[in-house]
Amino acid sequence: MFQSFETAGQRDLGPERLAALRAAMEKAGIDAFLVPRADAHQGEYVAPRDARLQWLTGFTGSAGFCVVTQKEAGLFVDGRYTVQARDQVADCFSVVRFPQAKAGDWLAERLSQGARVGFDPWLHTRAAVEALNDALGSGIAVMPVEPNPLDTIWPDQPAPPQGLVRLFPDDIAGKTAPEKIAEICETLKADGHAFAALSLPDSIAWLLNIRGSDIPRNPVPHAFALVEAGTGDVRLFIDEAKLRDVEVSYPVFPPESVVQALSQLSGPVRIDRDTAPYIFSHALEEAQVKFVYAPDPCLLPKACKTEAEIAHTSEAHLRDAAAMCRFLHWLSDAEARVLQGETITEIDVVEGLEGFRRATDRLLDISFETIAGSGPHGAIVHYRVTHDTNRALADGELLLVDSGGQYDDGTTDITRTMAIGTPTDEQIDTYTRVLKGMIALSRARWPKGLAGRDLDPLARAPLWRHGQDFDHGTGHGVGVALSVHEGPQRISRQSDIPLEVGMILSNEPGYYREGAFGVRIENLVAIEPAHPLPDQDDREMLAFKTLTWVPLDRRLIDVAALSPGERAWIDTYHAGIATRMTGRLPADVVHWLGDVTAPL
Amino acid sequence: MFQSFETAGQRDLGPERLAALRAAMEKAGIDAFLVPRADAHQGEYVAPRDARLQWLTGFTGSAGFCVVTQKEAGLFVDGRYTVQARDQVADCFSVVRFPQAKAGDWLAERLSQGARVGFDPWLHTRAAVEALNDALGSGIAVMPVEPNPLDTIWPDQPAPPQGLVRLFPDDIAGKTAPEKIAEICETLKADGHAFAALSLPDSIAWLLNIRGSDIPRNPVPHAFALVEAGTGDVRLFIDEAKLRDVEVSYPVFPPESVVQALSQLSGPVRIDRDTAPYIFSHALEEAQVKFVYAPDPCLLPKACKTEAEIAHTSEAHLRDAAAMCRFLHWLSDAEARVLQGETITEIDVVEGLEGFRRATDRLLDISFETIAGSGPHGAIVHYRVTHDTNRALADGELLLVDSGGQYDDGTTDITRTMAIGTPTDEQIDTYTRVLKGMIALSRARWPKGLAGRDLDPLARAPLWRHGQDFDHGTGHGVGVALSVHEGPQRISRQSDIPLEVGMILSNEPGYYREGAFGVRIENLVAIEPAHPLPDQDDREMLAFKTLTWVPLDRRLIDVAALSPGERAWIDTYHAGIATRMTGRLPADVVHWLGDVTAPL
Repeated sequence: MFQSFETAGQRDLGPERLAALRAAMEKAGIDAFLVPRADAHQGEYVAPRDARLQWLTGFTGSAGFCVVTQKEAGLFVDGRYTVQARDQVADCFSVVRFPQAKAGDWLAERLSQGARVGFDPWLHTRAAVEALNDALGSGIAVMPVEPNPLDTIWPDQPAPPQGLVRLFPDDIAGKTAPEKIAEICETLKADGHAFAALSLPDSIAWLLNIRGSDIPRNPVPHAFALVEAGTGDVRLFIDEAKLRDVEVSYPVFPPESVVQALSQLSGPVRIDRDTAPYIFSHALEEAQVKFVYAPDPCLLPKACKTEAEIAHTSEAHLRDAAAMCRFLHWLSDAEARVLQGETITEIDVVEGLEGFRRATDRLLDISFETIAGSGPHGAIVHYRVTHDTNRALADGELLLVDSGGQYDDGTTDITRTMAIGTPTDEQIDTYTRVLKGMIALSRARWPKGLAGRDLDPLARAPLWRHGQDFDHGTGHGVGVALSVHEGPQRISRQSDIPLEVGMILSNEPGYYREGAFGVRIENLVAIEPAHPLPDQDDREMLAFKTLTWVPLDRRLIDVAALSPGERAWIDTYHAGIATRMTGRLPADVVHWLGDVTAPL
Repeated sequence: MFQSFETAGQRDLGPERLAALRAAMEKAGIDAFLVPRADAHQGEYVAPRDARLQWLTGFTGSAGFCVVTQKEAGLFVDGRYTVQARDQVADCFSVVRFPQAKAGDWLAERLSQGARVGFDPWLHTRAAVEALNDALGSGIAVMPVEPNPLDTIWPDQPAPPQGLVRLFPDDIAGKTAPEKIAEICETLKADGHAFAALSLPDSIAWLLNIRGSDIPRNPVPHAFALVEAGTGDVRLFIDEAKLRDVEVSYPVFPPESVVQALSQLSGPVRIDRDTAPYIFSHALEEAQVKFVYAPDPCLLPKACKTEAEIAHTSEAHLRDAAAMCRFLHWLSDAEARVLQGETITEIDVVEGLEGFRRATDRLLDISFETIAGSGPHGAIVHYRVTHDTNRALADGELLLVDSGGQYDDGTTDITRTMAIGTPTDEQIDTYTRVLKGMIALSRARWPKGLAGRDLDPLARAPLWRHGQDFDHGTGHGVGVALSVHEGPQRISRQSDIPLEVGMILSNEPGYYREGAFGVRIENLVAIEPAHPLPDQDDREMLAFKTLTWVPLDRRLIDVAALSPGERAWIDTYHAGIATRMTGRLPADVVHWLGDVTAPL
């Protein structure tokens, strides 16, 4: 099993570690110190060595930071995590709700003029440090501190990960690394930049057609890279031990030496203010090397997948869909047993599902911790079951399962919500509204140039009409055998990035009634030019191609509430599943699939 | 008749006038001069005195400007007007498409270093002048010139308008002028501004509960005003002759003296960079009075109508709807005559419609030139019929009529598209798609905080799905007995202004096939808190209340393409018309209305 169900709690150790950190801070001459969840690569997952926030506080969430002064320690977490944080940390930490409260304001109220706030320059971005600086004003100094005082008091801090790097086949990537590097160099030259400094592992993995294994769930290596626009030369900063199995044609240096390399460049050097570690721009400033803030040049080309990538991830999605079909078939059997009094739990569901994915013999990892929320747990958007929270499936309740697989040729992410027993009218009405939004996006065409923000309302209007909404984005970008969350594309009120051909996005409206149930329905979709229609205008239109082919629970659909077009979409989608699963499933699952994909 | 059908063409006089202007420019020591369509109040309509662009070039469109050098004269117009402009102006003017081409770039290519570009500081905003300055760089001077060289060569230039001012009743406004002034002063104080300088006639008319008659279509007076935050004192800069019929309690000064008054203030003075004449901020700079750029403080409170305003404009809309019903009844008779070979033209339609509005005995003006487009003319979004373009209604074609009335208690704007004879399948399909978009907006509810941009896609998705779209905004703000186009609210991809209770907007999706037909369906809607629903979330939702109650042409609706909810909306809307028109129409129109509003 990739997934574990432990409640990683160390709340009792918090006070003692906090005291040790305060002593180290005093020694370093600082009055406050920031302990972020992030590592030097600003990823969603961190290696054990970088789990500083968890080690100090006991908090295991995927986002947050702790601000420590000699008297107080504020653990800043967002709305998803406030309850969990209060549960996991000792009383010496006060839980503060972020982003409503800002670290700068919190510190400004607690520090006096002349105070010094320290931070590890590898773990924070320029943008974050500047925001803190602005909030504190000139009377309080914000300063990089090395070594990280927390690392000095962490006796058994694990070593940095040494996950092996493998090559990512050119035929899946659709472009060779030299082709991609040449493209990036063109961008740099057009923008007048002599070098780009890269710190995002998935940018580097994409650019060099490699994959890594330093952190769970995301197949990327921890590394930095410098790209020289004029020559196309790439320098890779990575622990050489990770390259045991591959031969790379780029000069390789230890990761920390990127700082010295930066200081010896002739600029302008392109730095991503929002993702590069503070130490990058700091080193350039100190060495008086010219630099320019601009987005990581790999972000957009990585987001616009090649035809080969779309073809391969489509195949990965069909493989994953077959595993999901087996799982849903297993679940329908499990449901029958539940109705007869047997106990089936959320952990059983997670284990069952991972088992079917493993049985493909191609699963490298799950793409994130499976969310299996029974009844009221479905309303917790980022629920992760542990032995402590594990809940049995129950007659009359909904089960929400959000999961995905990492394969060597693609990354999947799918959510289905199923009835256990006979659903209530309210469950059916809600599911139907969420489904109408999901269909509206699936069927959408739109004039090229629009952003995710412009499509987001289509997924919400059916809920809005009933006074309802959901408090998360409608869709996130997804990589190909890379991160399951990738930018810059999103379907969200916050996203002004134009949608382009080749981008892969999730389409996942939901609805959550706290303490009662949650509904989410998610397919992945890829953007393609819309196929021509007889009466169409002379304008370029884009559309979504669905990648995910797994049945919807027909018992939760109110057919009378559908428009003719919505009903036709569901029937066509279900028929498409049956066709695509031909030859991929055993006879009993095929039989079951025929029933659940019949026309409504 | 308010509307006239003349082709105001003076193209032959262009060369001679252009030569005279060039001589005046030379005398003024400038190498280039800008002649805008706008006046000092940046309105959509200008008084005869301010029709400088038309006088010089012969171009009669409602937007554009001419850039004159000693060798060339570029007439900048947007896509709506390029054909018309080429038609109306002499060869000495070259028509340039705006905003694709910018005045600054055009001038930069034609002027040498050291050149001087003159402009009338009353007719341009600060924002426009700064944009020009940025484009030209430091080598070319952009300078205010007084008097306007064009005015010096216009021998029979009309005098400024002296339209009488009337009081706007407090019971319609829902707030007295002192109440509004006190509110504005609170805003100014909160923003740290000592004065606001107002130059928008509808802001001043709204603030002081007055109406004017200086320009056609918009019942506003040309005036400027200064509001002092601390005392609530208002100084009104207006030609005293206009105040013959009213007594105002504010000190009154000649309009031009606002410049001197500004220079004697103690700041900070609030100036709207996007609407105030350049001379405002220029005078403050010269006098070293502190000023701050911020939006006209009346814009938002004016946009959020009081309950009294909504109630009164609702009544004006019912009166206008009755006139529209009589018109549509007349049109159905006219259609029968057309099918029997009689000639009925677009001008007959405009005259017929205006006649029914006049017959209400309450019509003060039309709110804009009625658009009556028969067949292919319906595809010209801002079509205005003249004796030269007048076209007969024809069997198998569509007729698009966009019109409105100015009443003492409200302002209307409505578009209906009707079949003449038997419509084609293409006409029915198109009309139905446009109608679906219009219904989607009419039925929309949304969480408070969204902008017009967030609702715009709902009106377009049914067209997008068929590869179609329309190239205008979906909705504009509308005043109450004020301008039919008012900001800041809009339903448009460009509008980030949050929608608020009391705002009135048009809901007018369309579709245009050049050379063939146009469809547009427009109702006005007012924003209100959404009425509570049984299953709704605990979140504040807004919704539209429809103000316009006039039947849709049922012959153009493909009932099979509607969702159950869309069909129910149409039937409820039509039933609502029949109820609301009770007692407002003669027996024969009531009979006709019963037929056309029966359930689908």
